Amino acid sequence: MGSSSNGVAPNNNVDKGVDYANYFCTYAFLYHQKEMLSDRVRMEAYYNAIFQNKHHFTGKTVLDVGTGSGILAIWSAQAGAKKVYAVEATKMAEHARELVKTNGVEHVVEVIEGSMEDITLPEKVDVIISEWMGYFLLRESMFDSVLCARDRWLNPDGIMYPSHARMWVAPIRSGLVDQKKIDYDRTMDDWSHFVDETKTFYGVDMGSLTKPFTDEQRKYYLETSLWNNLHPNQVIGKPAVIKEIDCLTATVNDILSLQANISSIITAENTRFCGFGGWFDVHFRGRKENPAKHEIELTTAPSEDLGTHWGQQVFLLYPSIRVSQGDNMSVNFLMNRSKENHRLLEVEFDCELRQSSGKSLQSFSKKFYIE
Amino acid sequence: MGSSSNGVAPNNNVDKGVDYANYFCTYAFLYHQKEMLSDRVRMEAYYNAIFQNKHHFTGKTVLDVGTGSGILAIWSAQAGAKKVYAVEATKMAEHARELVKTNGVEHVVEVIEGSMEDITLPEKVDVIISEWMGYFLLRESMFDSVLCARDRWLNPDGIMYPSHARMWVAPIRSGLVDQKKIDYDRTMDDWSHFVDETKTFYGVDMGSLTKPFTDEQRKYYLETSLWNNLHPNQVIGKPAVIKEIDCLTATVNDILSLQANISSIITAENTRFCGFGGWFDVHFRGRKENPAKHEIELTTAPSEDLGTHWGQQVFLLYPSIRVSQGDNMSVNFLMNRSKENHRLLEVEFDCELRQSSGKSLQSFSKKFYIE
Repeated sequence: MGSSSNGVAPNNNVDKGVDYANYFCTYAFLYHQKEMLSDRVRMEAYYNAIFQNKHHFTGKTVLDVGTGSGILAIWSAQAGAKKVYAVEATKMAEHARELVKTNGVEHVVEVIEGSMEDITLPEKVDVIISEWMGYFLLRESMFDSVLCARDRWLNPDGIMYPSHARMWVAPIRSGLVDQKKIDYDRTMDDWSHFVDETKTFYGVDMGSLTKPFTDEQRKYYLETSLWNNLHPNQVIGKPAVIKEIDCLTATVNDILSLQANISSIITAENTRFCGFGGWFDVHFRGRKENPAKHEIELTTAPSEDLGTHWGQQVFLLYPSIRVSQGDNMSVNFLMNRSKENHRLLEVEFDCELRQSSGKSLQSFSKKFYIE
Repeated sequence: MGSSSNGVAPNNNVDKGVDYANYFCTYAFLYHQKEMLSDRVRMEAYYNAIFQNKHHFTGKTVLDVGTGSGILAIWSAQAGAKKVYAVEATKMAEHARELVKTNGVEHVVEVIEGSMEDITLPEKVDVIISEWMGYFLLRESMFDSVLCARDRWLNPDGIMYPSHARMWVAPIRSGLVDQKKIDYDRTMDDWSHFVDETKTFYGVDMGSLTKPFTDEQRKYYLETSLWNNLHPNQVIGKPAVIKEIDCLTATVNDILSLQANISSIITAENTRFCGFGGWFDVHFRGRKENPAKHEIELTTAPSEDLGTHWGQQVFLLYPSIRVSQGDNMSVNFLMNRSKENHRLLEVEFDCELRQSSGKSLQSFSKKFYIE
């Protein structure tokens, strides 16, 4: 029971109350909405995608999956949509309804409070728009709900906004590798001290917990990916695409488990290979039969000045590895959902490093949690 | 349905998965256990309570409610208990079992993984020991489980460890009152800026969210109590007891809702009355027919050098009020559980300030959330 390998979306088996406590509750805060609405890269991409492609919206019916404060629904209406269904699982729906009214589009936008999987629309729609992207694209697994919406409610000739998504990985250097190691060492020193004191003062030997404590802290400090806003010069090799998603045709099965073989050549001079950076981009291209007039890209790649609230996910290696320009790495990348919480991810990098001569430098396998 | 005024413990109606996600999950981390085990005030109080009152343990059966890493169960065994049942709802039970073994008391201590409400013991016990105290004593509502354990499993002449608890409130001064106001003002300035920008750049008027955003942020910055380690000289008036609990006789109904009328005289010279500090103490006295040989107190009152991980809860007033030595305040104190989460609390202070002459200075009513 509850296996996710039989083609059934695993969140069909998830307790909704637990999922709300763990996940949706964050989105019920206006402060959090404001953070997202203040992300100019995100905002401008969606704004331009809609208003530079009004032909996709004028006179059309639109479904906004996870409308939050309602901004995409309001823009869709302003771009000429005939009808917009704005679905939101949290109490934020009430605020969205208010915003819709004060922005004078209440005759077009209908806010529906409920989960996408549960609600029913009175008609199929021409466009599904959604800002569903989590950290490293797939954290939060919200894309499942978009796919569910598409399969149930998109007209056969309908359009997805965004239409495509890609995930990227690149080798990086980062001082965080030193910092996290120091933090980890400190917590383990504290533990030794604690075990000594508990034995001395309270007559209880905690030594048998050293192994599980080490595991717990190693996971926390060294095996969990970090949010980081990388500078482009921290990327030391050619970024590689690990997944391309066509939002019109992808299935939940396509994203339940990812596997990719990639290679990357070190482009920086003598430097430290400290791990991998991961990010994504999405594109608004319409569909082949009904393309965008102006294709828009929203990228969360390392940028000198345009950070996003997504930043990049950073997967660090301990210890880091000395590399030279021209060194080549081949990586087998694996990603799965966490068994404990389907909205979290686990990734694995199997990496082999070779000098440009072909001589093997080092190989390693490392697993990370995206929490 | 689900009303908590009919004498039924409200957590009978709580979704267990949600409760785990919101609450128990924290206790499944060894890091968190270590924090509690490193609290010397806490540790020494329980250690002394047990080992200075071995007559309560020698040859007796003991139940430890929420054993965590198992320390109280192990001490009980070391003090001579014949049998100890150590109940733990989280996976920490596995670590407790291991510690019990490596400390050579596995023939005495039986670790049971499960919630106190669900499990069954083979016999009644002579002692119930538990470290159930949350912030401001009752946050987390874990005492409910202790009472459930007592009513089901304590022998008629059994003993509660601790046996008594008290909650305290005192007027305080604190620089946090300025800091939090600055934080709040800054977040509201940001919001104005955000509303302007969203209108200018993206054509959407967010003005109607200003009221709910203000409410949300006011709650977060100004109406939520804070954890703080107060210095005794920050206490500017006589502390007052707002609740005394006899752990042997208390019922869930006694603690579902608290009400107290207290008064306090300002003892500091001209100063600012910035709000209230709240803390608790518990006592280990045994019971009248079978008293402790050495009564032990565990207090979380403001202390010059002995802080606890509980600290104090601080309830701040905006603006603070000028007061003089001899001014008198009478306070009607109310506390209830949060409707949204039975483990959180809401408190209300109705306060009247008078000069020593009897002249009324100010009165106010203020509500706080303990999150």
